[in-house]
Amino acid sequence: MAAGPSFPTVDTPAVLVDLDRAEANIDRFQRYCDEHGLKARPHIKTHKLPSLAKRQLQMGAVGITCQKISEALAMVEGGGIDDVLLTYNVLGAAKLKELQRLAARVRLTVVADSEPVVDGLASAFTDPAKPLPVLVECDTGAGRCGVTTPEAAAALAQHIDRQPGLTFQGLMTYPPKGDAAAAADWLARAKAACEAVGLTVTTITSGGSPDIWQAHRWKDIVTEYRPGTYVYFDRSLVDRGVCTWDDCALTVLTTVVSVPTEHRAIIDAGSKVLTSDLLGLDGHGHVLGRPDIVIDQLSEEHGRLVSQGPIGLRVGDRVRIVPNHACVVSNMLDHVVTVRGDRIDGPLPVAARGLVW
Amino acid sequence: MAAGPSFPTVDTPAVLVDLDRAEANIDRFQRYCDEHGLKARPHIKTHKLPSLAKRQLQMGAVGITCQKISEALAMVEGGGIDDVLLTYNVLGAAKLKELQRLAARVRLTVVADSEPVVDGLASAFTDPAKPLPVLVECDTGAGRCGVTTPEAAAALAQHIDRQPGLTFQGLMTYPPKGDAAAAADWLARAKAACEAVGLTVTTITSGGSPDIWQAHRWKDIVTEYRPGTYVYFDRSLVDRGVCTWDDCALTVLTTVVSVPTEHRAIIDAGSKVLTSDLLGLDGHGHVLGRPDIVIDQLSEEHGRLVSQGPIGLRVGDRVRIVPNHACVVSNMLDHVVTVRGDRIDGPLPVAARGLVW
Repeated sequence: MAAGPSFPTVDTPAVLVDLDRAEANIDRFQRYCDEHGLKARPHIKTHKLPSLAKRQLQMGAVGITCQKISEALAMVEGGGIDDVLLTYNVLGAAKLKELQRLAARVRLTVVADSEPVVDGLASAFTDPAKPLPVLVECDTGAGRCGVTTPEAAAALAQHIDRQPGLTFQGLMTYPPKGDAAAAADWLARAKAACEAVGLTVTTITSGGSPDIWQAHRWKDIVTEYRPGTYVYFDRSLVDRGVCTWDDCALTVLTTVVSVPTEHRAIIDAGSKVLTSDLLGLDGHGHVLGRPDIVIDQLSEEHGRLVSQGPIGLRVGDRVRIVPNHACVVSNMLDHVVTVRGDRIDGPLPVAARGLVW
Repeated sequence: MAAGPSFPTVDTPAVLVDLDRAEANIDRFQRYCDEHGLKARPHIKTHKLPSLAKRQLQMGAVGITCQKISEALAMVEGGGIDDVLLTYNVLGAAKLKELQRLAARVRLTVVADSEPVVDGLASAFTDPAKPLPVLVECDTGAGRCGVTTPEAAAALAQHIDRQPGLTFQGLMTYPPKGDAAAAADWLARAKAACEAVGLTVTTITSGGSPDIWQAHRWKDIVTEYRPGTYVYFDRSLVDRGVCTWDDCALTVLTTVVSVPTEHRAIIDAGSKVLTSDLLGLDGHGHVLGRPDIVIDQLSEEHGRLVSQGPIGLRVGDRVRIVPNHACVVSNMLDHVVTVRGDRIDGPLPVAARGLVW
C-alpha cells in the first residue's frame, strides 16, 4: 500500500481517522448482517466517538455495546443512542447508581456471571413493571469472565429469573480465538439447558472482529454480533486476513526526528500513542509504503524504525503507521484528526477516552 | 509486602499515589546527590504533576527534565518551575513557536543530534545577547537518538557554536541498559574531542532510574543526573534490586469482578490502566500480598489473575497492584488519587497526561 498523504499542516504525532473508510467498513458489515439475518450491535470501544456510533445505528445496528458505564454515558450524551448492552459485571453501590441513571435514558441490557453480581443488580432494580434485562456471560473457551459450563449458565439464569426487578434475556460470550464453532456448540447446549428449566432464551450474542465474516455460519444459534475493531481495522486484522491495508481507517501520523545510522530512524510516536500492544505480532505497527521497515522498539515518546536495507528517511520526513491494535490507540489522545482521503475534516474530541469506571 | 489498605470509598479502578513514599523517594535521591556533589534534574514524565515537580526543586534539584514542549508548559503553568531541560529534537515551525513561548518563561536548555535540528533552532532563536543553550544528544549504546561517535558530537557542537542565537552547553545521553561505564567512557572521549576544537563542555547529563544508586561512580565525567521512575519506583525496579515493594508509591486499586474457577480471578483493570508494557518481565504487575498470583493476560478492561494454588479471592474483593512500569500508568487516567498511608488525600488532575507535542 502507498504511503498516503502526509498532511503537512497537522502537527505530529496525530491519530488520523479516515471517515470515508470507517463509514465504508460500517456499511459493509451492516450489509453482511442484513444479508444473513444477523443483528449487529457494534462495540464502541474502538472509536469512542458518538458520531460513529450514530452512523452504526443509522445503517441498521440494533444498538451499541459498551464495556463500562462511563463509556455508555459518554455515548448517550452525544445524542441519538437509545439501546445499550453493557458487557461488564457491575459491582458496588456507586456503579449501580450510575447504572440506574443509564437505564433511565436508554433501553439497557446488562450481563452477569455470578450470584453476587445478580444480587447487586437486583438490589438496584426492583420494579417488576420495568425489569432490567440480564444476559448470562458464558466462558466458551476464552478463559476470561463467564460461567464455565452450560449447566452453570442455566442455574444462573434461574437465579436471575427469580429476581422481581430483573428478567433473564439470554446468553453472551466473547468466543475463544479461532474457535467460534466450539463457542456456538457451547451456547447451543446452554440454550437447551435453559429451555429445559422452562426459560426462554431471547438473545444470544457473540463478538470479535477476527471472525467477522464467519458470523453467519452460526446464525442458527447466535442472534446478534458485537464486533468493535472492524470500524477501523488494524495491523492485527490485516495479518489475520480479515481486511486489507486499504480498509484501515485509523493511522498514526508521525515525523522522523532522528536518522542516526543508515539503517535506523526515530519517529515522534512511542508507546504514548501506539501503545505496547503486540497482539502476537512482531514490531509495533506497519509503516505505510515501507514493508521493509520494522518498528522494533518503543519508548514513551520515540519509535525506532529499522530496515535491513537503507532506511532512506530524512529528519523531518513524515510517515504514517497502521497500529497493531486500533482500539487502544483511540484511548491515548484527547482528539483524533478526521480526514477523508487527502482532505482534512477536523479535530474531533474522543468523548469516551480514558473512561474506566 | 502486605496487601495494604483497600480504600473502600475510592471507586475502582484507580491509580493511587502515596505522597509519603513519593516524597521519601525524592528526598533520598536528593540526599544521595548532595553527598556526591551531583546535580539532580528529575524527569517529570513519571508523575506529570506540578506539585511533585515543585517538591523535587524545593529539595534541591537544579531543574526538571521534560521530553515534550507541551509537558514542559503544563509543568510551568503549575507555577514555581524556572529551569527546564527539553531532551527531545524539536522540529517544525509550530513546535519552534511553542519552544519560543517556553523559553520566554523559564531558563531553557534543549538538545539536538543533527544539523537539521540545530538549523531549525537557529532559525527560531537569533538573539546573540540571549542565546539558547543546546546540548548534543549522544548515542552511547542505547541505539535510539543521538550522534553515534565522539567525533560526530564535537562536529555538531561546532555547528551549534557557529549559530549566533545558540550556545553549545554540553552533552546529553540516555545510557545503555546495564552499561553506564561504557556510556561514561564514550562521554569522556566526546568531551575531549569538543575541548580539542576549543569548546567548553559545561554540562554532561545522563539519566535512568535503574542505575540511580551508581551515578556517583561516574561523577568525574557526568555532572547531572535525570532519573524519572525513582519518584514512584515500580515492579521493574524492584526486579532489578533498585528498590523494595515498600518504596513503590504508585499502585493500581482494583476490584475482583469475576472468579470463574478455583485458580482464576478477573479484575477491573486491564491495559487501559496497567498498559501492556512488560519491560522484560513475566506478567502485567505484582499483586500486593500475593506473590503466588500472576497477572497473565490483559484485555482493555480486564486483568486475569491466575495462581497454581487456590486463588482465594471473592467477587467484590479489592487488590492493589504495583505495575511493571509506573510512568506509562500515570499517562492513562485524567486523575490520580493521592494518599498518605491509609489516609486519602484527594483526587489530583494529572496535568501533563496525554501530551505528545
